[in-house]
Amino acid sequence: MSAPLADSFIERHREQILAGLYEFVRFPSVSTDPAHGSDMAACAQWLAAEFSRIGLRGEVRATRGHPAVVAASPFRSERPTVLVYGHYDVQPVDPEALWTHPPFAPHRDGDRLYARGASDNKGPLWAHIKAAEAWMEQTGEVPVNLVFLVEGEEEVGSASLPEVVRELGRDRSFRCVVVSDTLMAGRDRPSLTHGLRGLAYFEVRLRGPNRDLHSGVYGGSVPNPATILCQLLSTCLDAETGRIAIPGFYDDVRAVSPEERAAAAALPFDEVGYRLELGLRGLVGEAGYSTLERRWARPALDVNGLFGGFQGAGAKTIIPGEAGAKVSFRLVPDQDPRRVDQLFRAYLAAMCSPYVDLEITTIQAGRPYYLPVGHPLIQLALAAIRDGFGVEPAVTREGGSVPIVQAFKEILAAETLLIALGLSDDNWHAPDEKFELSNLWRGIRTMVSLYGRLAS
Amino acid sequence: MSAPLADSFIERHREQILAGLYEFVRFPSVSTDPAHGSDMAACAQWLAAEFSRIGLRGEVRATRGHPAVVAASPFRSERPTVLVYGHYDVQPVDPEALWTHPPFAPHRDGDRLYARGASDNKGPLWAHIKAAEAWMEQTGEVPVNLVFLVEGEEEVGSASLPEVVRELGRDRSFRCVVVSDTLMAGRDRPSLTHGLRGLAYFEVRLRGPNRDLHSGVYGGSVPNPATILCQLLSTCLDAETGRIAIPGFYDDVRAVSPEERAAAAALPFDEVGYRLELGLRGLVGEAGYSTLERRWARPALDVNGLFGGFQGAGAKTIIPGEAGAKVSFRLVPDQDPRRVDQLFRAYLAAMCSPYVDLEITTIQAGRPYYLPVGHPLIQLALAAIRDGFGVEPAVTREGGSVPIVQAFKEILAAETLLIALGLSDDNWHAPDEKFELSNLWRGIRTMVSLYGRLAS
Repeated sequence: MSAPLADSFIERHREQILAGLYEFVRFPSVSTDPAHGSDMAACAQWLAAEFSRIGLRGEVRATRGHPAVVAASPFRSERPTVLVYGHYDVQPVDPEALWTHPPFAPHRDGDRLYARGASDNKGPLWAHIKAAEAWMEQTGEVPVNLVFLVEGEEEVGSASLPEVVRELGRDRSFRCVVVSDTLMAGRDRPSLTHGLRGLAYFEVRLRGPNRDLHSGVYGGSVPNPATILCQLLSTCLDAETGRIAIPGFYDDVRAVSPEERAAAAALPFDEVGYRLELGLRGLVGEAGYSTLERRWARPALDVNGLFGGFQGAGAKTIIPGEAGAKVSFRLVPDQDPRRVDQLFRAYLAAMCSPYVDLEITTIQAGRPYYLPVGHPLIQLALAAIRDGFGVEPAVTREGGSVPIVQAFKEILAAETLLIALGLSDDNWHAPDEKFELSNLWRGIRTMVSLYGRLAS
Repeated sequence: MSAPLADSFIERHREQILAGLYEFVRFPSVSTDPAHGSDMAACAQWLAAEFSRIGLRGEVRATRGHPAVVAASPFRSERPTVLVYGHYDVQPVDPEALWTHPPFAPHRDGDRLYARGASDNKGPLWAHIKAAEAWMEQTGEVPVNLVFLVEGEEEVGSASLPEVVRELGRDRSFRCVVVSDTLMAGRDRPSLTHGLRGLAYFEVRLRGPNRDLHSGVYGGSVPNPATILCQLLSTCLDAETGRIAIPGFYDDVRAVSPEERAAAAALPFDEVGYRLELGLRGLVGEAGYSTLERRWARPALDVNGLFGGFQGAGAKTIIPGEAGAKVSFRLVPDQDPRRVDQLFRAYLAAMCSPYVDLEITTIQAGRPYYLPVGHPLIQLALAAIRDGFGVEPAVTREGGSVPIVQAFKEILAAETLLIALGLSDDNWHAPDEKFELSNLWRGIRTMVSLYGRLAS
């Protein structure tokens, strides 16, 4: 019954569905930039009104940070309750000069919709909202008690989310959570993700002399924080083995099972295509693991940014007073970001020159997530994806972090179904982000089916 | 004979000497600011007229940039020819609000004359001009063929200077060059600088993936140019010994002689004061050398700037598409910046991951300069300074580079005498620049003596 319901809804409302998504992506809802505070509030308000319009009582919940939007279909106690999570905040647009079209002026090119946030996460969230609208419009109700939680702080660490989740959990228990904030295995290869990496993200800052010094007059006689920063960060990774060199770091890393290694190896992953698409001459990583295993099931260390001293054209002969880096770890079961935090701080403190000031700031932390493939919820979600896409979905893990998934598990005791609608070339966090509209339509069909199946 | 000559001249013309210097510093000759183009021309014209007034035929030489002023005493072929170099351009005055008095309205407070350019370089240059005038007035001639070259682009890179120097060298050969554009060792401690370090300044840029990537999705499977940059730069310096780790780098480094080590050790250098003034807990550098030796006589490597990836507040979870650094070497005799260029490029190419693109750009290169203390010119200059100041001068080297000194050596085959008249608290390039008039009078006496001694 769900497929005709979805198809009929899409058929009749295609242009309105697109127009609404265009409106949604026009909001420059950049959560990390204080200058966009009022845009965040306006976006939340608009979204709450949209929920109310389709019959799901929408409300804006104030938090200590950016507001969250909560909406719920009319409650009936005999039905299971399902939480749909998404986020309306987006990444910054810099470097804006690299965008072909203005990032907040949606530009459609055939099946592609270009805009910041189109794929991360406004487009996929839109598929859920429109699936709820389809049920409401065609049957007057949604077959489960559907609760939407759309946060405005996903890109900045979801600091306020746990409190909102705790409020939701106070008077409801949830059968499960559904999230579409992951990437498909390929253009016609939908996927269900049963594992996510965790995150520990830091800023490391070294301070040397009390001002920038003339490098001719002083060079060779004073500690240079930029030079020392390079030395310090280089000690964290073994360039030979690709392993993180911090003692104890691998203690809690769960081995990848032979079954999972076989399943990953059986996926049609095109390593050469992956490399060429990224413009790389070669791939690197931890010795003894495949590229998919390195991305999904093994931890990683990355320097996300470097700064300090002179960055302009030409020469300025200074020893900078300070230098810094953004450094992050991706974590896997059973690593705990708090333990990684301790290990990293202790290691840097031990390795750093005593003649510069070392300041480490923890910016984000999130646990890894893992649900076994045999779980009934996984099997039910796979059936819904088959309904929506008409093909066999891939069962995957992902390298990224969705810290809230762990929060749902801890606070609501609910597992999360991660159903991907984005593509790996959608340019998340990069210029020219896009969403493919075929995945909007297939997403609506999938979610219409999923809500129906979760009712039984 | 020179001391009475100078004293008598100063005695009778003190007020006119000061009035002339006041006029000189009133010109807002800021070379970097196009708005001051006509002030530059007016200052050059005024200076040329001043030279002609005292009997040294002055002329303004047009260049592609700001004009240079050239002046010469009547030529007699049996005499040695001496070049005096100075510059009439000054640094910008910003932040102007921090000046106690307007920067181009000279303000006298006892021995101190406050004005932009008073010490860098108009005051010291004035001592040379007035010494020439003293000889002319009292004897009708200068005992050497004295050629002045006063440029208007010292603060902006001296782009036009080599051409003017080549012209001067075409029909004359010079016994030596005299420059007063350095700093004294202390308030009553004049100094002669006999060595300068050279420079090789590079930009190093690594390119990895063809765009910034999501560090969750890709982390652990692709080469990260920021991480690799840290590893690469850290291999250039041995953190234990403080020595540059590039093979062959020290091949051409001349050992510091026992005599020079003893002389440096005898200088009243306050290492604790140096460290405290810079706000440092400790000093570092090449093992086995003192701080002064590390600054003056040993090479150094500094990272002058780091850039790449995310530099803002908070977190952005990316693997940057590229990262880079400004890296420079200070060179000592007998290093050649061209050889260092080759060694550095070969080393980085050998050490760098083959999976990122390595781009190295040479931005500046200058040879070190060194004249042995036993050289007759040094001994002659020291005697002149004793005459002028009445105290024993310090014989020093400097860690910085004065590229024009190498130009004089290469183009004119002439050595340069660097006789300091400025003080380290004269606020060069900063608000409230001042020149101490006692150094004007002692400078005139020194140069009157020097010109006399160079004649013999």
